[in-house]
Amino acid sequence: MIKTGVIGASGYTGVELLRLLVMHPETELVAATSDAEAGTPVSSVFPALRGHVHLNFVPHADASLFDCDLVFFATPNGAAMRRAPEFLDKNIRVIDLSADFRLKDAAVWSTWYGESHSCPELLDAAVYGLPEINREKIKGAQLVANPGCYPTAVILGFLPALQNGIIDSAELIADAKSGVSGAGRNAALKTQLAEAGESFTAYTASGHRHQPEISQALNGISPTSVDLTFVPHLLPIVRGIHATLYATLNDEQTDVQAMYEKFYENEQFVDVLPQNSHPTTVSVRASNVCRIAVHRPGNQRRLIVLAVIDNLVKGAAGQAVQNMNLMFDFPETTGLETPALMP
Amino acid sequence: MIKTGVIGASGYTGVELLRLLVMHPETELVAATSDAEAGTPVSSVFPALRGHVHLNFVPHADASLFDCDLVFFATPNGAAMRRAPEFLDKNIRVIDLSADFRLKDAAVWSTWYGESHSCPELLDAAVYGLPEINREKIKGAQLVANPGCYPTAVILGFLPALQNGIIDSAELIADAKSGVSGAGRNAALKTQLAEAGESFTAYTASGHRHQPEISQALNGISPTSVDLTFVPHLLPIVRGIHATLYATLNDEQTDVQAMYEKFYENEQFVDVLPQNSHPTTVSVRASNVCRIAVHRPGNQRRLIVLAVIDNLVKGAAGQAVQNMNLMFDFPETTGLETPALMP
Amino acid sequence: MIKTGVIGASGYTGVELLRLLVMHPETELVAATSDAEAGTPVSSVFPALRGHVHLNFVPHADASLFDCDLVFFATPNGAAMRRAPEFLDKNIRVIDLSADFRLKDAAVWSTWYGESHSCPELLDAAVYGLPEINREKIKGAQLVANPGCYPTAVILGFLPALQNGIIDSAELIADAKSGVSGAGRNAALKTQLAEAGESFTAYTASGHRHQPEISQALNGISPTSVDLTFVPHLLPIVRGIHATLYATLNDEQTDVQAMYEKFYENEQFVDVLPQNSHPTTVSVRASNVCRIAVHRPGNQRRLIVLAVIDNLVKGAAGQAVQNMNLMFDFPETTGLETPALMP
Amino acid sequence: MIKTGVIGASGYTGVELLRLLVMHPETELVAATSDAEAGTPVSSVFPALRGHVHLNFVPHADASLFDCDLVFFATPNGAAMRRAPEFLDKNIRVIDLSADFRLKDAAVWSTWYGESHSCPELLDAAVYGLPEINREKIKGAQLVANPGCYPTAVILGFLPALQNGIIDSAELIADAKSGVSGAGRNAALKTQLAEAGESFTAYTASGHRHQPEISQALNGISPTSVDLTFVPHLLPIVRGIHATLYATLNDEQTDVQAMYEKFYENEQFVDVLPQNSHPTTVSVRASNVCRIAVHRPGNQRRLIVLAVIDNLVKGAAGQAVQNMNLMFDFPETTGLETPALMP
Repeated sequence: MIKTGVIGASGYTGVELLRLLVMHPETELVAATSDAEAGTPVSSVFPALRGHVHLNFVPHADASLFDCDLVFFATPNGAAMRRAPEFLDKNIRVIDLSADFRLKDAAVWSTWYGESHSCPELLDAAVYGLPEINREKIKGAQLVANPGCYPTAVILGFLPALQNGIIDSAELIADAKSGVSGAGRNAALKTQLAEAGESFTAYTASGHRHQPEISQALNGISPTSVDLTFVPHLLPIVRGIHATLYATLNDEQTDVQAMYEKFYENEQFVDVLPQNSHPTTVSVRASNVCRIAVHRPGNQRRLIVLAVIDNLVKGAAGQAVQNMNLMFDFPETTGLETPALMP
Repeated sequence: MIKTGVIGASGYTGVELLRLLVMHPETELVAATSDAEAGTPVSSVFPALRGHVHLNFVPHADASLFDCDLVFFATPNGAAMRRAPEFLDKNIRVIDLSADFRLKDAAVWSTWYGESHSCPELLDAAVYGLPEINREKIKGAQLVANPGCYPTAVILGFLPALQNGIIDSAELIADAKSGVSGAGRNAALKTQLAEAGESFTAYTASGHRHQPEISQALNGISPTSVDLTFVPHLLPIVRGIHATLYATLNDEQTDVQAMYEKFYENEQFVDVLPQNSHPTTVSVRASNVCRIAVHRPGNQRRLIVLAVIDNLVKGAAGQAVQNMNLMFDFPETTGLETPALMP
Repeated sequence: MIKTGVIGASGYTGVELLRLLVMHPETELVAATSDAEAGTPVSSVFPALRGHVHLNFVPHADASLFDCDLVFFATPNGAAMRRAPEFLDKNIRVIDLSADFRLKDAAVWSTWYGESHSCPELLDAAVYGLPEINREKIKGAQLVANPGCYPTAVILGFLPALQNGIIDSAELIADAKSGVSGAGRNAALKTQLAEAGESFTAYTASGHRHQPEISQALNGISPTSVDLTFVPHLLPIVRGIHATLYATLNDEQTDVQAMYEKFYENEQFVDVLPQNSHPTTVSVRASNVCRIAVHRPGNQRRLIVLAVIDNLVKGAAGQAVQNMNLMFDFPETTGLETPALMP
Repeated sequence: MIKTGVIGASGYTGVELLRLLVMHPETELVAATSDAEAGTPVSSVFPALRGHVHLNFVPHADASLFDCDLVFFATPNGAAMRRAPEFLDKNIRVIDLSADFRLKDAAVWSTWYGESHSCPELLDAAVYGLPEINREKIKGAQLVANPGCYPTAVILGFLPALQNGIIDSAELIADAKSGVSGAGRNAALKTQLAEAGESFTAYTASGHRHQPEISQALNGISPTSVDLTFVPHLLPIVRGIHATLYATLNDEQTDVQAMYEKFYENEQFVDVLPQNSHPTTVSVRASNVCRIAVHRPGNQRRLIVLAVIDNLVKGAAGQAVQNMNLMFDFPETTGLETPALMP
């Protein structure tokens, strides 16, 4: 049993972490922070947690966080980098669900996130928390940079093909679609139901922050240099990411289906569907699973990979719990066993 | 550990039962039946259950059902009454999620369900499976008639007021709204996304099958005779029932809030919200909880009760598991502890 | 051809007015105001109007408004009452789509709207713009108070029964449901797609601002005093109001269906459906029609009336155009002839 | 004033045609056919048309169709090819909204549509009804093959780039997403609200019928041979197609924005948005407009084109009316002037 705290617990990734930690038998939730809601019962803000979470929100600076074995940052970008050192200095391990420690290059980070990085010296030590590529490093990490939601889906979709060098890494396209919870629990106009509810649109087609994160990870995997075009879209659903990935095979004879199945056969949270399948986002809703299907129209050189996740689970809070399990030597699936919610 | 079977496992209440049974530590699922899908892996029809359910569908008549300690009927109305006796004769207990054993009067049943009842002699022995009114009877029951979704919400909403005799039982109104999963997993035109998705409508305003079921239960509770007007509506959401209940207080001095809180203080699955609350259906999604709020505009004689449930959980499969827990002396909350899924 | 201006044109009722005025052959749009968007092309904020509206937004105080024959206020409550006099003094007619001139009693207004009324002397002269009850007065009006969306549906639903004195006016219930566009074009948390999109809830069950407006209008119709319980709910759709109305007949022999059909036979925008119908909100989407059905379960004393409108059309901008047509002696249906958008 | 008939008027493209013809000042609707609904008032099946369409459905074989100047086929694939000759023989012009006359090669047609073509001799004479590429031919056509919904969006998006030869035609990708009305007014399981409402998925990723139709049209435009990868997806909205198109520029210096603006400057129904825009499907809902934006991440060789249409209007019935206008020498925008419906 370990003690945990969630910093920034009033957003969607924060409350999803609370939901998952409630179901986790090896953790005790010590603190849930929110400056805006400090003093209010967590269950007043989130009635879904009535009877499950009996804490009040405390301020971000609350001293109880220092009693923890592990703190999660579910804060907006820029907050974790300012506070992570004080926890690490006390040997409290950190999983950051924001983007602060995902990029290795502080200059690239500051280009995309609009300010200087406050502790670039930690970027090297931070482990990119995608267990399917970094499992062993995560086990020993003090600081884990939990991947973004889009990156999780896109990287898991390209991983077997890239690592095995069967596709042209210079011509990758990721057409990705996300439910609105990915935009966070904010009162924004464009994610109002009346605006987004019966509509669909791409956004930041000329460049999105997740592009360098994905490219960095894919370059780490691929024997050859990666050039990726990434276009995100806003889906009128609450949870779910669907990535449609396009690549060109080097050799038309490759049995891609078999390769993908073999590559992921021991992964608990990656599920390669049978030939000719089309995964639905609802088939992973509320679960930590990524489901993948591969297609080859006319058995020719074009490869299409379809990958779905729940952006709040495998794309955020669930993956953070998976990382925690690795870091504290719990079975990797602990607290993440519930099936997806369908319908 | 008991052995269970689900007859009619390819509909929404059936698959929801499978989802809940997967999470239940005291049951082993022996058989999931579907004549249409016999031979197909359950997880092919429902990819959300990949990795969780490893059975193939078997026909409704499959002999393996007779190895069970308990069978659930999640079949269309009319099927359970034909087959329940063969299980009961073998001392296999039965929970019927259809309407076959809910009404005590076979003539009323046949008026609303369009055929004669095939085993009226069981109607008296069948226990109406609403634990909040029949807990002790359920524990010893061989045959439980699991309540309808609308009836669960409406009865729980009126129960404290009616049982305490504080409202005029001759003037009850239930304006109820249900998500489309309540209509079942059928290819119907009116529940197509293109028809129902950006619309809202009442249906069967002149008379719905759940009206006699609710009236029977309310008459069993109320010291005075009940006259109920019940209008159901179709909500463009997947899961959730919201019942808005209207009644007239006999005495304006009654402290209804306190009475409701006290009435349900020991119930694990009924949650009375603080004064001036408005429960949302999403606050109970995927959970077995009914949340209730009471309102009195201007503190006058009009009482408004708002009650929400997940129609597939507390309104169907979750309540069935709760009944199973009572029948087999498991803690009542076993397998039903996960919080609601929000957002 | 008249000249019109829309004050507050960047909200949903404002942009809906623009859409309708574009299709109106007898009006020229002179100005669309928005302090926040002043200087920006209308079609940049609303790309749906590209090619149709070629104006830039101007500030609320723009002098071009004084060239108009008619100005519409589509502003938040409290703005119209401060500025209407300057237009009326110049013989420019005013249709106010906000609540400023709907209530006759300034004290009641200030109770519900939280400030003193700035020109109570105009309340008597303002005509409540529901053509079905005030057609002749509207024709000569200088200042029209356009009804609220809920009031339009509820009043039209009760009107024939109340005016004919066939129901008990002391026991009226209106259970009303509205799409989220009724909450306006605001960045609010509770109407975010991630919050409201797969949910349903009542709100202000203990008292809503439209209650006194409806009561005032119903008392103006009814030979006996009205007591109304009104509960609004938030629907996860963009457009549409569905009012489910409950009343008790004085005499079970009344042919309510025939009475409703006769009452509205000459109304162009009220459509009484055949017996046993259930109007859908989508059947009136984007149109100025109110569709009504009446039900009597078991042909007994309980009367149920179902009424649907598009909250932005018959519940706001369409009714405003209908009022304009009356005020300027255009055919009442001018610019409002397009059918509802289905699916 | 011409006389028109709609064969197959009970589906979504059929009823959308009825809605548009109601608003068209130069046509008289003589017959709306449906074998299943023959004898029933059109407005009973579609209450949205109450007061607008006063016809009853007649059988497909009804003789009144021969009084028409023009008949529209809004029938399932395979019906129009069997009946078109009898109309053409009588000099009645035909617009077919199904796929029967879209492909020039009868063998290809039969590969994708699963039966032999019944009148291959008409394939050459049929004019592919995309006015932006075939305006002059359409004017004189007796038989117009109205384009599919996906093809309309994809072709209009690629057209300027392909025709000007600025992209590599051998590497085209179209990632397309459609609302569920594109699947027709059928009682199918996969388009049930409970299945598709909170989900997203690709379908037929290994090959869709619209692929050869798009390829044929693009090859007709492009100076070099086209290789297109096309993946369709199902959006949980009612109306709307969003095509995200990927291509590689031959020359990074090309000013694509200027080229697109110039190419379409005289087209009434194609709207090129300003630089850095992202069209939303709701911005064209219920209108005949295609809105397009172009993007070049980092101003490099990758070109991204975003194109949106309403699948039932520019993707079906609206384009059919546009074609009719051309064929009968009405102004091309007649009956198609109403702005999009937002919100």
